[in-house]
Amino acid sequence: MPSNSALHVQEGIPQPEPVSPYLHFKRKKRLPADTYIDGILAANRVVLSQAITLIESTAPQDIETANQIIEKCLPYSGNSIRIGITGVPGAGKSTFIEAFGKYLTSIGKKLAVLAVDPSSELSKGSILGDKTRMEELSIDPNAFIRPSPSGATLGGVARKTRETVILCEAAGFDVIVIETVGVGQSETVVKSMVDFFLLLMLSGAGDELQGIKRGIMEMADALIITKADGDNVPKATAAKALYQSALQLFPKNENGWMPPVGTCSVYHTDSIERIWQLISDFEKLTKGNGFFFKHRTEQSVKTFFDWMNHLLKEHFYSNALIEKSLSILVSEIREGKSSPYQAGSKLIHDYLQLTSIESP
Amino acid sequence: MPSNSALHVQEGIPQPEPVSPYLHFKRKKRLPADTYIDGILAANRVVLSQAITLIESTAPQDIETANQIIEKCLPYSGNSIRIGITGVPGAGKSTFIEAFGKYLTSIGKKLAVLAVDPSSELSKGSILGDKTRMEELSIDPNAFIRPSPSGATLGGVARKTRETVILCEAAGFDVIVIETVGVGQSETVVKSMVDFFLLLMLSGAGDELQGIKRGIMEMADALIITKADGDNVPKATAAKALYQSALQLFPKNENGWMPPVGTCSVYHTDSIERIWQLISDFEKLTKGNGFFFKHRTEQSVKTFFDWMNHLLKEHFYSNALIEKSLSILVSEIREGKSSPYQAGSKLIHDYLQLTSIESP
Repeated sequence: MPSNSALHVQEGIPQPEPVSPYLHFKRKKRLPADTYIDGILAANRVVLSQAITLIESTAPQDIETANQIIEKCLPYSGNSIRIGITGVPGAGKSTFIEAFGKYLTSIGKKLAVLAVDPSSELSKGSILGDKTRMEELSIDPNAFIRPSPSGATLGGVARKTRETVILCEAAGFDVIVIETVGVGQSETVVKSMVDFFLLLMLSGAGDELQGIKRGIMEMADALIITKADGDNVPKATAAKALYQSALQLFPKNENGWMPPVGTCSVYHTDSIERIWQLISDFEKLTKGNGFFFKHRTEQSVKTFFDWMNHLLKEHFYSNALIEKSLSILVSEIREGKSSPYQAGSKLIHDYLQLTSIESP
Repeated sequence: MPSNSALHVQEGIPQPEPVSPYLHFKRKKRLPADTYIDGILAANRVVLSQAITLIESTAPQDIETANQIIEKCLPYSGNSIRIGITGVPGAGKSTFIEAFGKYLTSIGKKLAVLAVDPSSELSKGSILGDKTRMEELSIDPNAFIRPSPSGATLGGVARKTRETVILCEAAGFDVIVIETVGVGQSETVVKSMVDFFLLLMLSGAGDELQGIKRGIMEMADALIITKADGDNVPKATAAKALYQSALQLFPKNENGWMPPVGTCSVYHTDSIERIWQLISDFEKLTKGNGFFFKHRTEQSVKTFFDWMNHLLKEHFYSNALIEKSLSILVSEIREGKSSPYQAGSKLIHDYLQLTSIESP
């Protein structure tokens, strides 16, 4: 998606582009919040991109504008299915998302692909950074691809991604895919912002598994073995059977959904179609039993508390005096000279002494 | 264990009891920290009990004494193997711990059994509260049983239990068992304070499993199917095979340990002995590859940060003004009227405004 063209997304049909009235503010020039809001609600993708940039900005005036945009977009958000996709590097995430996304746009869906990769600053964007990895999808007028925000903690990346989802939904995207890597803590964060969590695995239960984080299998709403084509078919089928019997041992989800195991190949459209069918089945079941929106509400409330806890910690740990004591205390604890509880209580006491609030 | 007798534990041999010099402070009367410390180091169990009561107390003067005791006991702590044991109600935890504990004391070990059960106040002590459930162990002079501290948050229970471990180790107990229920968040907390985490399961992969929390299987260092006796043997053996193939699919632990699956019956001492052998193998492996103490150091550092975060949150959420706004904001978020991030940022801003610290 070339960033200097303003592609409208309307009813799934690519429209010839008028000269965009928003083109002139593409270089750091900011406009009033309402201009962004109107652009987003009109499904203008350049405006959407620029509003996301505001969300990612740390400049105080940008934060204020971003907050106004989000507040106004909130009532228009929520009408999508949010899908998290994870898997170790090599599991074929990009290739899968390209095929899955092309299938979705072919059936009239409007797809936004976001990424959560807190390491992206260091790795210069290991996922989605290089859009050429999704060659066809990146030029699809019904798809919108946005790499992971960089330069932030995982909590910050989570906030930015969650707010970006709101904007994308307000812009009319009805399938949101959030990609992440299955090796760190980012899956838990992605799990907390999606309706459906898809784990991509390679066939073979041996070495390929080692990179994946413990606990992640139990988070998945479906487990798909990729690259099930050619010589790989018997191996993938065997792996499927293995994972199927393993998943049966897991306790049931409270939403009544039993996570299925499947195989897929980007060379077989029917296998991609089956995955979409599966997600639709999930949506139908959980909307039927009330879990879908109950789950979203719980996610929002949890996000509220998580965010406050994040800010509290941020304020504490960025205090210069605290930072100074911290490394000394960690050394003492490592050497067994201090109790973690006593050291912690003392430091918090000192921090609160700096404040005018009375301890409870 | 009658609480008014002072049983000394020395080299595993029960000693005739002298009239304890500590007897007279058993009713809320407090003595100087040094008196407790001397008693603990002399393995006096009444003193140990009373020192633990100080740790559990919320009275300011008790907290100060408790801190002094912990600080002085720290250099004498660490020489035990800390074993976490979990399983759903009905999995036979108490019966197992009774048999396991009796076996350990029979081979000359000194065993302390603690519990982490944040619900114990409500349920009036669902685990270990009723010591008669471990009839023989509770009168074994080489065993010390202490129910879960009550009336505290999970963070508070964790702190008290972790500090109790220090005291028990200083008193010469070389096996510490921490029991918890496998249905809430307490297993994660127990996992974070033990060297080895044992999951007890019932045979049968059906309904029995439903009570257990998702994710807990991947935490276990061993999975033991209990009640493998009589008619139950074929079922237990079949369950063992199932779990074995399931666990093989999990990613490897970084400590090099592959969690085994076993069966046991309290009627077959050899099955209990095998579990101890297994834990000893684990200890040998991880002490050999350096993971054992590396893991403990990491646990301490993590505890330090977790505790500070807990105190920060406690201070924030117990603020009367915050409490008032909180329920209003949660309702707004539930109704989709507010963004969790904006509501959270506003509340933290208000809280920090109450302080004299400058925001970073």
